[in-house]
Amino acid sequence: MSAIAMSVESANNNADSNERFTVDYRVWAATPSEARARAAAIALEQTVEIPREVVPAGYVEDVILGRVAGLREEAEGQFLARIAYSPDCVGAGLAQLPQLLNVMFGNSSLQKGVKLVNFEASPTLLQRFPGARFGVAGVRQRIRRDHGGLLCAVIKPQGSTSAELAALAHATALAGADIIKEDHGLANQPSAPFAERVAALAEAVARANAQRAAEGQRARAAYFASLAGAGHDLPEMAWRAKAAGADGVLVLPGLHGFGAIHHLSADASFGLPIMAHPSLLGPHVLSANTGFSHGALFGMLMRLAGADISVFPNHGGRFGFSRAECAEIAAHCRDPKGHCLPILPSPGGGMSPQRMPEMAGMYGPDCVYLMGGSLLAAGDGMAGLIASLRDALA
Amino acid sequence: MSAIAMSVESANNNADSNERFTVDYRVWAATPSEARARAAAIALEQTVEIPREVVPAGYVEDVILGRVAGLREEAEGQFLARIAYSPDCVGAGLAQLPQLLNVMFGNSSLQKGVKLVNFEASPTLLQRFPGARFGVAGVRQRIRRDHGGLLCAVIKPQGSTSAELAALAHATALAGADIIKEDHGLANQPSAPFAERVAALAEAVARANAQRAAEGQRARAAYFASLAGAGHDLPEMAWRAKAAGADGVLVLPGLHGFGAIHHLSADASFGLPIMAHPSLLGPHVLSANTGFSHGALFGMLMRLAGADISVFPNHGGRFGFSRAECAEIAAHCRDPKGHCLPILPSPGGGMSPQRMPEMAGMYGPDCVYLMGGSLLAAGDGMAGLIASLRDALA
Repeated sequence: MSAIAMSVESANNNADSNERFTVDYRVWAATPSEARARAAAIALEQTVEIPREVVPAGYVEDVILGRVAGLREEAEGQFLARIAYSPDCVGAGLAQLPQLLNVMFGNSSLQKGVKLVNFEASPTLLQRFPGARFGVAGVRQRIRRDHGGLLCAVIKPQGSTSAELAALAHATALAGADIIKEDHGLANQPSAPFAERVAALAEAVARANAQRAAEGQRARAAYFASLAGAGHDLPEMAWRAKAAGADGVLVLPGLHGFGAIHHLSADASFGLPIMAHPSLLGPHVLSANTGFSHGALFGMLMRLAGADISVFPNHGGRFGFSRAECAEIAAHCRDPKGHCLPILPSPGGGMSPQRMPEMAGMYGPDCVYLMGGSLLAAGDGMAGLIASLRDALA
Repeated sequence: MSAIAMSVESANNNADSNERFTVDYRVWAATPSEARARAAAIALEQTVEIPREVVPAGYVEDVILGRVAGLREEAEGQFLARIAYSPDCVGAGLAQLPQLLNVMFGNSSLQKGVKLVNFEASPTLLQRFPGARFGVAGVRQRIRRDHGGLLCAVIKPQGSTSAELAALAHATALAGADIIKEDHGLANQPSAPFAERVAALAEAVARANAQRAAEGQRARAAYFASLAGAGHDLPEMAWRAKAAGADGVLVLPGLHGFGAIHHLSADASFGLPIMAHPSLLGPHVLSANTGFSHGALFGMLMRLAGADISVFPNHGGRFGFSRAECAEIAAHCRDPKGHCLPILPSPGGGMSPQRMPEMAGMYGPDCVYLMGGSLLAAGDGMAGLIASLRDALA
C-alpha cells in the first residue's frame, strides 16, 4: 500500500472549502492514473453530468462541480477517492435528503467498481441533517434502562389477529423485553388492520408496563409500531400510531425512501424514536464492488437520515453478512466521531437463545438484540426464556 | 438442464389458487433438494418469517404462508423457483405498493444466491395495480407522433439559472425533440429554484410548440419536470409542476420509493405521464446473484408501479450494463404479456450521436432515446444535430 499524491482541484478556490461535504468512494482501477480519472469522472457524474470540456466557467465550474479532494491507494488496484461537494448541489432552504443521496451516489451507483464507504457533513448540512433525535442515550432514557444490552421481542406472524398479536406483545413485555417491535411484514392486512392492531398492541404493552411498575420495576417496555402506507402517507400513519399510544415507529427506508426517516426525525412535534428495518436494502451491500459498504449503509446513512436504531441481519444466521461486516455496522452506528448522535445497532434474523452470550460478547451493551421466531418456538417456556435472556444482558 | 418435479404445497387447497400472485426467483443451490429447501425457505421468509414448525394451523398456514408453486433447474446449480402469495399478505383495501415489494423481496433481498426475475399479478392485484396510465400509445398520442423513435433532450447542467435552462429547453424543443426532460440532478437549487425553474421551462417549451404549430408541424414536444422533495411532499411537487404547465414528471424511485410512482399514476385527476429515473438503483441489478434481474427491475417493476417511460444506462457508455441486459430491459418494458400496458424503454448515459443508428437498430421505434451532454458539446450545431437525429429516428 503506497500513498499517491493528494490532488485538490481548483486549489486557488478554497474560500468555501469548509462548506463542502465529502464522500469517500472505494474505487477499483489498474493504475493510479486510471484511479485519478475515475475520481474525476465521479465528481462530474454526481454533479453536472456533462463532459468536462463543456462545463460552463464561473459558478457551475467553481461551486457546483465536485472536486477530487483526495486519492490514496488502499491496496493493489484499490483506491480511496474523496470528492468534495457544495451544499448548493443539494438544494436551497429546506433539507432534502433524497437530493443529498442523489448527489452522493445516484448515477455512480449504476457503475461497477465504485463503492460508497463514508460521508462527512459540512456545517450547513449538519444544520439541515441533525441526525438521530434520541440515539443511544435517548432510547435508554425512554425505557429507563441505563445499563446493559436491550432485548427486543418481535411480534408476528403476519396473518394473526390483532388480539393474538396483542397477547404476544403483552406476554413479552411483562416477561421483561425492553422493546416490543412489530414484524416489518405487518402492514394493513385484513387479519389485523393497522388502526385496530396498533391500538390493541399499545394497550397491551401499557398494561404490561403498569404491572411491571406495580411490581416495583423502574424499566418499562417501549412499543414500536410497524407503519403501513407509502411515502406520501407515511407521516400520517406515524401520527396515527403515536395517537394510539405507540412509543416509537418502525420505518423501512428501502421501501419508503430514506427521506421518510428524515422527515419524521426532523419533526420535533412528532418526537418518537425511529427504528429502521433493512427490507429490500440487501443488494446495496451484498456486491463486493458496487453499492455501499455495510458500515456506510447501516451505520452512517441511518444516522444521517435520523434513525435511532438500525436493524440488520446478524452473521451466522440465514442471511449473507459476515462477522466483520456486522462488526463494521455496529462500529459505524456508535462511532463518537460519526454523524451527530451515536445510535443503537440491532442485529437479528433467526438468532437462537443459545447464541446470545456470543452475540453479547461481540456487540456489548449499547445494542438492541432482536428475538422473534425463537420466542414462538419456546411455547410455554417463552416468559422464562425472556427473563433469562434479560438477565444475561444485564 | 433437466426439469425436476413441480411441487405444489397444500395441493388440497386450490380454491384460491387463481387469487395468488406469483414471483419467480433464480436460486443458486448445489442440488435439487437444496433448491427445494431454499424455495420453501423463501416462502416462509417473505410471509410469516418464523420457523415452519411453529406456523399456526388454519388461516396463517393455509392462506398467508407462501407456497412453492414450481421449481425447475435452469442450468447446473441454478434453479427457477416460483412462489405463490395471497393478496392478503399485501393488505386490505387500498393498494400498497411498498408492502407488495416487501412480500416480493424484502428480507430475501438480504440473502446471497437469490435473484428476483419475474412477477405475475392475480386478478385482485391487477385491480389494485393497473400499471401505466399512458404507456407507449398514450405517450405517442400526447406528443402526436405515431411512428418512429422518440428523441429526448436532457436539460442540464445543475448550477445553471432558470433562464439558461429555459433557453436550452426552447432551443431543443424548437429543433424537434419530442421530450424535453430535466436532468435528474435538478431539484430545488439556489441557482434555479423549483417553482421558478419549472414555470420558465414550461413557458419555453410551450412557446417552441406554438412556433412548431405555426410552421404546420403536428407533433409537439412534451416537457417532463424533475421533482424536488421527499416522499411525503412529492405529490405536492408533481401537482405544482402540472399547474405550471409541465406535460409529465420525472420520478426517482430509488430515492422516493416505488410507491411515489404508483401514487401519482393511480391518481386519475393528476393524469400526467411518468418517467422513472434509475438513480441509486444500480446495486439492485449489478450483482450476479442478488437483487433483481435487469428486466425485472427496469421493465416489470416499473410497469407494476405505473411508470410510462423507464430510463436506464445504455451498454457501451460509462455504466456497467451489457448489451444483453439492456435488450432484456427493453423486452420487459414492451412485452405484450407483461403487466398491463407496455411502456417505453429509454436508454441513455453518454450516448454520442454517432451511436444513434446502432441504437435505433437495437431498440427500434417504441423507445425514447436520451441525448444530453452531446447536445451541449455540439454548441452552435445543436439544432442541426437534433434535426438530423430526429430525421434518422423517423
